[in-house]
Amino acid sequence: MSSTPQQPKRPLTILQRSLNMKVSVRLKNELEYRGRMNNVDSYMNLILLDAEEFNGANANPVANYGKVVIRGNNVLFIKIEKDL
Amino acid sequence: MSSTPQQPKRPLTILQRSLNMKVSVRLKNELEYRGRMNNVDSYMNLILLDAEEFNGANANPVANYGKVVIRGNNVLFIKIEKDL
Amino acid sequence: MSSTPQQPKRPLTILQRSLNMKVSVRLKNELEYRGRMNNVDSYMNLILLDAEEFNGANANPVANYGKVVIRGNNVLFIKIEKDL
Amino acid sequence: MSSTPQQPKRPLTILQRSLNMKVSVRLKNELEYRGRMNNVDSYMNLILLDAEEFNGANANPVANYGKVVIRGNNVLFIKIEKDL
Amino acid sequence: MSSTPQQPKRPLTILQRSLNMKVSVRLKNELEYRGRMNNVDSYMNLILLDAEEFNGANANPVANYGKVVIRGNNVLFIKIEKDL
Amino acid sequence: MSSTPQQPKRPLTILQRSLNMKVSVRLKNELEYRGRMNNVDSYMNLILLDAEEFNGANANPVANYGKVVIRGNNVLFIKIEKDL
Amino acid sequence: MSSTPQQPKRPLTILQRSLNMKVSVRLKNELEYRGRMNNVDSYMNLILLDAEEFNGANANPVANYGKVVIRGNNVLFIKIEKDL
Repeated sequence: MSSTPQQPKRPLTILQRSLNMKVSVRLKNELEYRGRMNNVDSYMNLILLDAEEFNGANANPVANYGKVVIRGNNVLFIKIEKDL
Repeated sequence: MSSTPQQPKRPLTILQRSLNMKVSVRLKNELEYRGRMNNVDSYMNLILLDAEEFNGANANPVANYGKVVIRGNNVLFIKIEKDL
Repeated sequence: MSSTPQQPKRPLTILQRSLNMKVSVRLKNELEYRGRMNNVDSYMNLILLDAEEFNGANANPVANYGKVVIRGNNVLFIKIEKDL
Repeated sequence: MSSTPQQPKRPLTILQRSLNMKVSVRLKNELEYRGRMNNVDSYMNLILLDAEEFNGANANPVANYGKVVIRGNNVLFIKIEKDL
Repeated sequence: MSSTPQQPKRPLTILQRSLNMKVSVRLKNELEYRGRMNNVDSYMNLILLDAEEFNGANANPVANYGKVVIRGNNVLFIKIEKDL
Repeated sequence: MSSTPQQPKRPLTILQRSLNMKVSVRLKNELEYRGRMNNVDSYMNLILLDAEEFNGANANPVANYGKVVIRGNNVLFIKIEKDL
Repeated sequence: MSSTPQQPKRPLTILQRSLNMKVSVRLKNELEYRGRMNNVDSYMNLILLDAEEFNGANANPVANYGKVVIRGNNVLFIKIEKDL
């Protein structure tokens, strides 16, 4: 576990450096949530602010959430829209 | 694990600071429960008081629960209706 | 993990204080069991006495069980009918 | 973890005190096995002797097993037919 | 965890004493494998020799395997055909 | 756990030596992602850069992702297109 | 856990002694991969070289993979075609 400069960052470290970025979170059940990633832990539990819920091919959000805590085990992937 | 002021709170810490707030809990089986979050642990096991059960698009509750303990592994997300 | 008086009880602690109460246990497969909660552990394995099995919308029990041990990982929620 | 006399037994302790009793074991896939519970561990892995396999509403056994080891993670519940 | 003579053996101990016996292994996906149990560990990973694959009600094997390693988490049950 | 020269590398070690290679990641839900593997951990959480999403037999990508974090438990396999 | 000469090898030990053998790996989703087992760990994560993908009853491979890392939790069984 040496940490020489050339060693790449681990995925969860990268995630935690992307706080407050806009992200799209796709869940296993096909729903997708877009919002600002206020918080994330090593299990990929995350908190989104100003989140919109999208359902598959439908381009318009089907619901809005001021603050939502997503349980990490449902996450398929997190797309970082804008990164450091 | 330093805890400097600028470090963001972890999701489960946020959740546990939202006790007694109104929440909506969506489960993996599409059911949704709304009530007062009396309690939650790090596994997202939670206790809701004065809970109503909703089924998908149906706007009216299909059942009422004075006190219900939801097993965390079924949780998709927890929407915090009103937060500190 | 201080335990000041104002700190709320954790969900599993609450559950274990509700022993011998009447509960309804909904499983992930839609079946529901009602009976007296003789016992429960931190995994939500539980023992029900004088239990009745219900199947979805059907108001009449489809089976009766003198003593049944339910494996916790199947539990969706536990409704506490009458609590301390 | 005090063990005062009035503290109830945990579910798995109860199970292990019911060895050699007749039990019905319902699995998640709807199959049910009835036999003598020769053995059980804390994961609910169990050994049944003289077991019969039942399939849902069918009252007649569809197969017989002299000795069968059931993997605990498939168990929905264990009904203890006759208990100490 | 006393180990008095009258204490029953745990299921996995029993399994490991049945090595080289003929077994039938039913998996969660309904397939069944019959062969000689060359090896098994506490996760129910097992090695079968001279194994035949059966598919549900079909009485004839659909495939033969000289040596196959089955991952334990797929196991529904293991029937011990002939035991010590 | 001796580490003599003739001992083969473990799969996850191999993976982590393939950073920055082009990979195809097939998920359990049939979707496939192709891109440069920027990062991977022992759980197979991985970060892809310049990723394209493919859906089954369709030869054209259905979406593009600048930077995506895939949760490891969804991974079926990772094909390393070009390796050291 | 004595290790007398007559004690059988554990399944994962057997697997790791079969490196570089030809294997067939059946996954839970019915796909099957055949190739040379370059590597395997205790979780059954494995690396196949010169792998072919087969789909159920179809005798012809549907895809070829120079080097593929399969995540162990998808594995149903590993058939060792030719063993030491």
